[in-house]
Amino acid sequence: MDRERFEKQKNFILEIDKEKSIFRQTHLSGGGRRENDAEHAWHMAVMVYLLQEYANEPIDIARTMMMVLTHDLVEIDAGDTYAYDAAGKATEHERETAAADRIFGLLPEDQGRLMRGLWEEFEAYETPEARFAHTMDNFQPMLLNDSNGGGDWKARGIKRSQTEKRNEKTGTGSREIWEYMKTLLDANVAKGSLKDE
Amino acid sequence: MDRERFEKQKNFILEIDKEKSIFRQTHLSGGGRRENDAEHAWHMAVMVYLLQEYANEPIDIARTMMMVLTHDLVEIDAGDTYAYDAAGKATEHERETAAADRIFGLLPEDQGRLMRGLWEEFEAYETPEARFAHTMDNFQPMLLNDSNGGGDWKARGIKRSQTEKRNEKTGTGSREIWEYMKTLLDANVAKGSLKDE
Ligand SMILES: [Ca+2]
Repeated sequence: MDRERFEKQKNFILEIDKEKSIFRQTHLSGGGRRENDAEHAWHMAVMVYLLQEYANEPIDIARTMMMVLTHDLVEIDAGDTYAYDAAGKATEHERETAAADRIFGLLPEDQGRLMRGLWEEFEAYETPEARFAHTMDNFQPMLLNDSNGGGDWKARGIKRSQTEKRNEKTGTGSREIWEYMKTLLDANVAKGSLKDE
Repeated sequence: MDRERFEKQKNFILEIDKEKSIFRQTHLSGGGRRENDAEHAWHMAVMVYLLQEYANEPIDIARTMMMVLTHDLVEIDAGDTYAYDAAGKATEHERETAAADRIFGLLPEDQGRLMRGLWEEFEAYETPEARFAHTMDNFQPMLLNDSNGGGDWKARGIKRSQTEKRNEKTGTGSREIWEYMKTLLDANVAKGSLKDE
């Protein structure tokens, strides 16, 4: 074991423990507390594995799982930017790039490059793996929210058109899952949790 | 999309949300609150990927990641049994087997069999993947605990011999990581967090 290399890996592993304290807008199923980024990432990784049959294109499973497990690490420095927060979204990329420099910079150079590459691949939204990862990133909170009667939408007065805008590329990862997600939107409009605008 | 199959997958995905409410004895780094099973599993999966170079034998990465992501799902019904709770350990297997029947039984039959197989493989501790997964299962809480000055050991008066017994097979997954873990035990004995017995 190269002890210097291992210390860098260990420091990164301890640093990312902070992701467990980054809370999102989504609430746990059963009307529980807000979910944190580590829990969200765990849930998405299991979903990638179990729902891979619905990906539009073949995907590399280990790479897609690692992508979803780590796609939010930049929020340790940059914080969670709510999907419908326009002002936050405007500065998100700059804040997250600085975070990526610092956080992935803790790793040995080869692994830092690899992890940063996965994050950039996710952000660029151009590979089958990135497209499917984004489908999971949007489907996971929608499932939880729907299981809570759409409470996260209702509390913020979200419109159907906003969810559709946010999900405009979701079907490029999985047409079938996006078709299913639209049935959840319909149901939440029908019960008044999502505004019909 | 076979809608009946998809509903089973969706029901399983929502059911496992409960793992985020199973709290362990380990505390988050920085002296934080107790960690839950979903966070523990997330952390282990990232570690599998980043530390695979230290595995004694070649491992299938996607399978090992999925194994660590789901190895504690049975605790949704069976609860977390603390590693040093002898009475709880005596009934753990029976409680966890009943839990596996119910929880993996929510999935379509092929995926239920596959997921249950991964859990049984982890429990049997006989494949390179299971051995490395167990190394991560023991190293992850030790890293957090050590970062907190060994507080989880100190609070319960744990002896070095107990940690060594618990880790008697840890080196079969990774000799190098187990060597490193022993340096953490030494350091915690030296500072009085772990009893020198
Ligand atoms: Ca356990």
